[in-house]
Amino acid sequence: MAYLNDNYLKLRAGYLFPEIARRVKAFCDANPEPAKRVIRCGIGDVTEPLPEAVRSAMHKAVDELGARETFRGYGPEQGYDFLRSAIAQNDYRAHGLDVADDEIFVSDGSKCDCGNILDVLGHQNKIAVMDPVYPVYVDTNVMAGHTGDANDAGSYEGLMYLPCTEANGFVADVPKERADIVYLCFPNNPTGSVATRAQLEAWVAYAREHQSILLYDAAYEAYISEPGIPHSIYEIPGARECAIEFRSFSKNGGFTGTRCAFTVVPKSLMARTAKGESHALHPLWNRRMSTKFNGVSYVVQRAAEALYTAEGKTQVDALIRHYMGNAEILRRAATDAGLAVWGGVNAPYLWVRTPAGTTSWQMFDRMLSEANVVITPGSGFGSAGEGYFRISAFNSRANVEEVARRMKTIKW
Amino acid sequence: MAYLNDNYLKLRAGYLFPEIARRVKAFCDANPEPAKRVIRCGIGDVTEPLPEAVRSAMHKAVDELGARETFRGYGPEQGYDFLRSAIAQNDYRAHGLDVADDEIFVSDGSKCDCGNILDVLGHQNKIAVMDPVYPVYVDTNVMAGHTGDANDAGSYEGLMYLPCTEANGFVADVPKERADIVYLCFPNNPTGSVATRAQLEAWVAYAREHQSILLYDAAYEAYISEPGIPHSIYEIPGARECAIEFRSFSKNGGFTGTRCAFTVVPKSLMARTAKGESHALHPLWNRRMSTKFNGVSYVVQRAAEALYTAEGKTQVDALIRHYMGNAEILRRAATDAGLAVWGGVNAPYLWVRTPAGTTSWQMFDRMLSEANVVITPGSGFGSAGEGYFRISAFNSRANVEEVARRMKTIKW
Repeated sequence: MAYLNDNYLKLRAGYLFPEIARRVKAFCDANPEPAKRVIRCGIGDVTEPLPEAVRSAMHKAVDELGARETFRGYGPEQGYDFLRSAIAQNDYRAHGLDVADDEIFVSDGSKCDCGNILDVLGHQNKIAVMDPVYPVYVDTNVMAGHTGDANDAGSYEGLMYLPCTEANGFVADVPKERADIVYLCFPNNPTGSVATRAQLEAWVAYAREHQSILLYDAAYEAYISEPGIPHSIYEIPGARECAIEFRSFSKNGGFTGTRCAFTVVPKSLMARTAKGESHALHPLWNRRMSTKFNGVSYVVQRAAEALYTAEGKTQVDALIRHYMGNAEILRRAATDAGLAVWGGVNAPYLWVRTPAGTTSWQMFDRMLSEANVVITPGSGFGSAGEGYFRISAFNSRANVEEVARRMKTIKW
Repeated sequence: MAYLNDNYLKLRAGYLFPEIARRVKAFCDANPEPAKRVIRCGIGDVTEPLPEAVRSAMHKAVDELGARETFRGYGPEQGYDFLRSAIAQNDYRAHGLDVADDEIFVSDGSKCDCGNILDVLGHQNKIAVMDPVYPVYVDTNVMAGHTGDANDAGSYEGLMYLPCTEANGFVADVPKERADIVYLCFPNNPTGSVATRAQLEAWVAYAREHQSILLYDAAYEAYISEPGIPHSIYEIPGARECAIEFRSFSKNGGFTGTRCAFTVVPKSLMARTAKGESHALHPLWNRRMSTKFNGVSYVVQRAAEALYTAEGKTQVDALIRHYMGNAEILRRAATDAGLAVWGGVNAPYLWVRTPAGTTSWQMFDRMLSEANVVITPGSGFGSAGEGYFRISAFNSRANVEEVARRMKTIKW
């Protein structure tokens, strides 16, 4: 009889967001009237229309597919040159960062890339993640057999968890022990924290010392508002030898339903075989993408390219301002309610301490039933997230103002 | 130091199609005048415009994304209900086949699905592939560590190769030994062969006896022209207990650059843990897709849905007739040239025996230099493909007629 991958059976309950969806549906089914008032600040999903420059580019690309002369079949698995070049130029070289066009790999999502990167890495690696953590990093390692079972708090044996706490400003300290692969995410999902240049320098120094690889998730880079905060890991000297960067158009261009992202794999990044031979990872990732992927839809790649035009940039700026305006309103409302709040300054997420004695999921249920607002329980992101909840600023202004009003009505 | 996945270093040279692209580029760079005449019948890539019904649907979907009321962010990772339902209804239930909407998983490509399916299967499985074979089945198993090294003919230790020869009409015989996972592809890429109902019944009986899983790739299903040839593995009683089916919109709707496909995982399909417990694979694949994928672009799902409208069906029929008309012209030209030819009746591929004493790659180089036509060397699909080459019928009519003319000029 065919064997399944037993590691899947180690996975806890549902992936966080399906579990939230399940609870919201149950509440709405049982409470038809309040259901109409429900406002979702749970999943970090954009709400505002796709920028006009993007839609124009998509219409044009669709028309091109309608004529034999301009029709496009299979594109390069790594992405079209026009997009790889626009990315490398605008996101890196324009900022003085040394990234070549062919170090950019265009994909249909950062979630996919963060999971798929494990394909080219060995099973022997010691893996470190921050806690709380975007669940995909953990779950994909569980699936790949890199962990033992989970304990009651949801932590998996074999992973190194790096606590992010009020004491360290929710930026994990560099550990004393060696980790081969370290997942870093700044601006952070879920806490909204950012790492300073000095903190990232410490991480790069750590990685260089241990010859580790940093998997740097910069999906929320566009939300950084404070000067001096690095937007890319490649701003840190030496990072080209130790870091892979993941970026996405989901949260800047509003592409969560349009689907486009990219991963930077520097050609100078090495890893070793079981026998200790050193090889570049770039050709392995290139081979992985050529063999298990067929490139992103042509129309979508043209859409992403449009984000780099003058109009596109202006329209993205307006989107970011909108969501960060929301974050400011929510931040003030939570602070006025007497809650301790982090994030919301360089990220579209607020990280809020629950009132004493309330667990994250209790807070989720209270917010849903009392205020009809969906938040994300901090414990869903890991045991160090217990006692916190995340509010997403991705919403219409009217909804955010209504959430702010309702927060005043809750007896905290 | 971080470890890489050593298995990647076992992979032979390039993936077939990048290697072809490399040789064509080298030829064109060295021969600028003949380069202008090159006609590509190598990779199986569609050439005709995207159907009008599809483009209309895409324009409409792009416009929807431009208004807050109709904007779509993250969709279901498994695909929108409107598309899952259209697929299950039109491709299965309309033909009396029992497939539920939620057994359909929409993806961005069959290549991805064929590779990713290994995520949910155990490493202990004995894997069987046909030879010649679509390289992705083999390479993804090499990457996953399911093989030893390759021999000089390119066959990997540990895989069970099922020869497809002139003697068996290029349809592999059911083997005597047990295999846990068997990749079947009908209509076949590269040989263009199809399996009869009786042959598929034998495969299902084999799978039921050994509790194996058939990975059934039906990407070319729309090209079946002869009555009585099964279009789906689920036409065979018992297949819901032993088969996963992969289908694609690439070759019927011309979606190679638009990117949409789907996989059917019946809820009745079981596999076992290392300890021998039996579990359904459906929830594992569902979890895989929820965790490592974020759904197909909304605009592209609306494009795929349009293929199931009356206009869409008519336009797909016209595309299929066009390419199969090409196949008929190429088939006649090759036959007139005195070559032994298979395929091209229920598939857009012709499988041609090379003249005695000519290897597949020699034939590739001769066709490129003498006729300026790109074909695919049979040996690129496995050792049993040596001595054959594949001609793709995906082209404009004018190009195909020109290829037919040039075939007469070659001294075979």
